[in-house]
Amino acid sequence: MKGVVAINPGGADQLAYVERPKPTIEENQLLIEVHATAINRTDILQREGKSGYATNPIIGIEVAGVVVDSSDPQVSTGERVMGLVNGGAYAEYAIMPAKRAIKIPNSLSFEEAAAIPEVFLTAYQTLYWIGKLQASESVLIHAGGSGVGTAAIQLAKQLSKAQVLVTAGSANKLKVCRELGADVTINYKEQDFEEEVKKETDGKGVSLILDFIGASYWERNYQSIAVDGRWVLIGVLGGSTVEKVRLMDIMAKRVQLTGTLLTPRSDVYKAELSEDFSSRVLPLFENGRIQPIIDTVFPIEEVQKAHERMEANQNIGKILLKVR
Amino acid sequence: MKGVVAINPGGADQLAYVERPKPTIEENQLLIEVHATAINRTDILQREGKSGYATNPIIGIEVAGVVVDSSDPQVSTGERVMGLVNGGAYAEYAIMPAKRAIKIPNSLSFEEAAAIPEVFLTAYQTLYWIGKLQASESVLIHAGGSGVGTAAIQLAKQLSKAQVLVTAGSANKLKVCRELGADVTINYKEQDFEEEVKKETDGKGVSLILDFIGASYWERNYQSIAVDGRWVLIGVLGGSTVEKVRLMDIMAKRVQLTGTLLTPRSDVYKAELSEDFSSRVLPLFENGRIQPIIDTVFPIEEVQKAHERMEANQNIGKILLKVR
Repeated sequence: MKGVVAINPGGADQLAYVERPKPTIEENQLLIEVHATAINRTDILQREGKSGYATNPIIGIEVAGVVVDSSDPQVSTGERVMGLVNGGAYAEYAIMPAKRAIKIPNSLSFEEAAAIPEVFLTAYQTLYWIGKLQASESVLIHAGGSGVGTAAIQLAKQLSKAQVLVTAGSANKLKVCRELGADVTINYKEQDFEEEVKKETDGKGVSLILDFIGASYWERNYQSIAVDGRWVLIGVLGGSTVEKVRLMDIMAKRVQLTGTLLTPRSDVYKAELSEDFSSRVLPLFENGRIQPIIDTVFPIEEVQKAHERMEANQNIGKILLKVR
Repeated sequence: MKGVVAINPGGADQLAYVERPKPTIEENQLLIEVHATAINRTDILQREGKSGYATNPIIGIEVAGVVVDSSDPQVSTGERVMGLVNGGAYAEYAIMPAKRAIKIPNSLSFEEAAAIPEVFLTAYQTLYWIGKLQASESVLIHAGGSGVGTAAIQLAKQLSKAQVLVTAGSANKLKVCRELGADVTINYKEQDFEEEVKKETDGKGVSLILDFIGASYWERNYQSIAVDGRWVLIGVLGGSTVEKVRLMDIMAKRVQLTGTLLTPRSDVYKAELSEDFSSRVLPLFENGRIQPIIDTVFPIEEVQKAHERMEANQNIGKILLKVR
């Protein structure tokens, strides 16, 4: 079979779709005939040789496809599933731990399904498992046009009726955020987001921040958070090193700051998250209240273009690879 | 009646026990004839004019005494109670919100009772409400000889059978910590605590840190914490400003950092905490498995000496004032 690897650690030009051994299943695993997969920022780190925990030379962490071999009696061959894999997603076949398989609703195509697992599981995990978002609370979502951003906006509105405040860097991205349910949209290139947040929350600040940005927004995020607010750190697109952190401020506002990454977590964690997600969120896809947001679909042979598009921050929603 | 105020913001020499109006109760309040009260670090901040949220000129936030007037049908006059007050504790009479009153077990004197509320409620709140300490987990408690430290050691052993690691700065303090149940005691002046923590936790680090120290221990606390560890920040004795915080580290270890202060929290919060504490912890005082740790008892007229002793970090456990 064929799969995408980085010939040498480096740029998108290092990606190649090459012949690789077809994997075989062990206990509690599924062999998936991959129909579609999706690009994530962690894939870029792996391509650059910076990921630290990737062991499979084939890139990619999520797939949608058909089960063609199973060692778990609860999952049959022929089933349409989506879910997280431990690497190896950009390929004709991939191995999935059986307990992570999420059944694809009949209403969704394989491409639509491939746009779901990583970003919706991450958004669900950060909003609810870590961020404990409650009805009537408010949440600030940075990078509102990103894959996780577009997923989080929908979940926060549909599961919690929370007040959703979003930042993004273009009018077009903000328009999509509003269509998905965002109550307040802020163009960070034109407005001071912390001032808008204060204005829209009667000076109190938000209950929860989903922070993909890190260092460059540190002070403004602190200004934006409410007393007893939760601050979930899931990315450092704006830099990793904060020059000065004032601990008395963290105590005075009783802030809870939690760092998280989904990909390196355990099989057990991912299985429990996938199961909870299936029962609470899948029905909302089935009745159309939540939708996967697709930016572009590239044939897998054009994987280099797909990576370049993500690195240019041009996408609104997910960039997909069609495998078959 | 008489109460202790700071004549001018400043040192312990500014404290004076002076004639003040006797307070009267409003709805849902108790008037307490104070028998004993205790020194807390927040009292020193108030004395220095740095507290920011104190409104009562009489210093002090906890008392033990007898109810002499009540507007709450659930609390009768004549009852022996202890609990947190909104200032005004260093006095012959103090007002307590009725829902914060904790009945004093018959086995305890007023002085023993006055050594309980602030430090045991803080330790209980940080270990369990915020820190979510579980059986078989490990906890690192800095300033093990302090009031909160000696309370936290006992709670973590008696409620959770957790592995308890403590730091302190003298052999005598460490000996008391061991007697209270600490499994590992580390003299921070002679040992690198992060190395001892790693050794005693098989390289994994601790599940929970109670951090009274802040900036000066930041890096070593990070080295000491386990993946998915909780880090509760409740003091900045070692400085408030951390230079260069690496957010990727917080994400990689999935650290949850929570700042907290008990005194400025709401009436509702303190009432719920006092109630939960009464049902879960009071029985352990009654059967002697947990004990209040008293360092010294000063007559209230010697309040200056009591503050000086705390500022010299000489105490093991609580410094009390006997009022009558």
